[in-house]
Amino acid sequence: MVNPAATFRALHHDRSPGDPLVLPGPWDAASARAFEDAGFPALATPSAGVAASLGYEDGSTPADEMFAAVRRIARSVSVPVSADVEDGYGLPPKELVARLLDAGAVGCNLEDSTRADGLKDPRAHADWLAEVRAAAGDALVLNARIDTFIRGAADPVAEAVDRARLYIAAGADCVYPIGAPLTALPHLRAAVEGPINAGAPADGSVLREWGAAGATRITFGPGLQRRAATAVGEIAERIRRGE
Amino acid sequence: MVNPAATFRALHHDRSPGDPLVLPGPWDAASARAFEDAGFPALATPSAGVAASLGYEDGSTPADEMFAAVRRIARSVSVPVSADVEDGYGLPPKELVARLLDAGAVGCNLEDSTRADGLKDPRAHADWLAEVRAAAGDALVLNARIDTFIRGAADPVAEAVDRARLYIAAGADCVYPIGAPLTALPHLRAAVEGPINAGAPADGSVLREWGAAGATRITFGPGLQRRAATAVGEIAERIRRGE
Repeated sequence: MVNPAATFRALHHDRSPGDPLVLPGPWDAASARAFEDAGFPALATPSAGVAASLGYEDGSTPADEMFAAVRRIARSVSVPVSADVEDGYGLPPKELVARLLDAGAVGCNLEDSTRADGLKDPRAHADWLAEVRAAAGDALVLNARIDTFIRGAADPVAEAVDRARLYIAAGADCVYPIGAPLTALPHLRAAVEGPINAGAPADGSVLREWGAAGATRITFGPGLQRRAATAVGEIAERIRRGE
Repeated sequence: MVNPAATFRALHHDRSPGDPLVLPGPWDAASARAFEDAGFPALATPSAGVAASLGYEDGSTPADEMFAAVRRIARSVSVPVSADVEDGYGLPPKELVARLLDAGAVGCNLEDSTRADGLKDPRAHADWLAEVRAAAGDALVLNARIDTFIRGAADPVAEAVDRARLYIAAGADCVYPIGAPLTALPHLRAAVEGPINAGAPADGSVLREWGAAGATRITFGPGLQRRAATAVGEIAERIRRGE
């Protein structure tokens, strides 16, 4: 038996700068199958996309419903699936890990801020990440989100670098400075060892550029779900007009 | 308080032949909102579309998951939502009605066949529909599916007419001869009193023709979910190719 997390982890390494790992974000089983059929080697659920499909505001999905959605997605495809589980829903690290593995995830995104309280203390968050790593062993690829760009940090690049180093030392496999603009990536790339996840526009034509700037791994947040919802709206409008 | 089922029921009546009631079939909250935003006055979930979104073969969705999906859809829109609950999952009529109302549905599709056993005895099925009607009062719009066209009945039109009369006498608000071709609708229209649901291609340009042929109400089965999945696949292919 190959450890599926090891397979997923390996996709993050030995990549050339123009060839980032691109992970589409499924919101249901049908989208997951479409992404697998298109040839992507792994998928990463976006919490905002899943929330839209379930009918919640982003950040308001109950933990049970998020894990159930991840399970439906993971069981529908044969490629590895990473799960965006927001800030971990207040679960103790062991329970968080157990629920992720039970849902079939081989990795997860974990955020270092909350909407209500803003950025968490970086050392306390690194300690928490180390607890998650200890509970998971090598069975989960931990993608540590760094929220300095979206929570109005005074110097989001410098604070992201500090946080990235702490989170990697705590055992994160990858860091994800969400909201980092393309222009910030070369500095982050130079200052941080290990894989960097960038959030890019859901547009294939920009991916090489984002990869060349320093992204190891690229995700689109809810970008693909929103493109799909736009397409559904256009189909509905045409039918409504009798076309 | 207006009875929402009464609002939905009224949409089936006093329609001109070229203006059928068109009910798009949402499979999740996001698609339901897109259909509501496009201006449709009501929605009707397709069991096959919901199954695809949840990752099941059509006909294999557990009842609990189907009701949960209906609930997520119904709570996300302000227009009436009818639910395809297949053959009722073996629930006693009172429990079936209670679960539909609890999920926020104002109507339902009920099938007169099963994949395993084929067409049910029409009189026994009419008796069951009468029990559902008695349990629901006027709180649900009952759309009685007639499966003679898809289960290989010897004379699907004549048997559909016989079944339609029994089901309407039992209290069905509408009958749905699924798989009936456009050419069969004028005969069905002439022989059956009351609303007829036709399953049409998910193509706005054919709706007036289907309405003129005798369809009071038009649904697309999983047609819209499949068009959406095709659109998602095309978006994914383009991103994969770097476009």
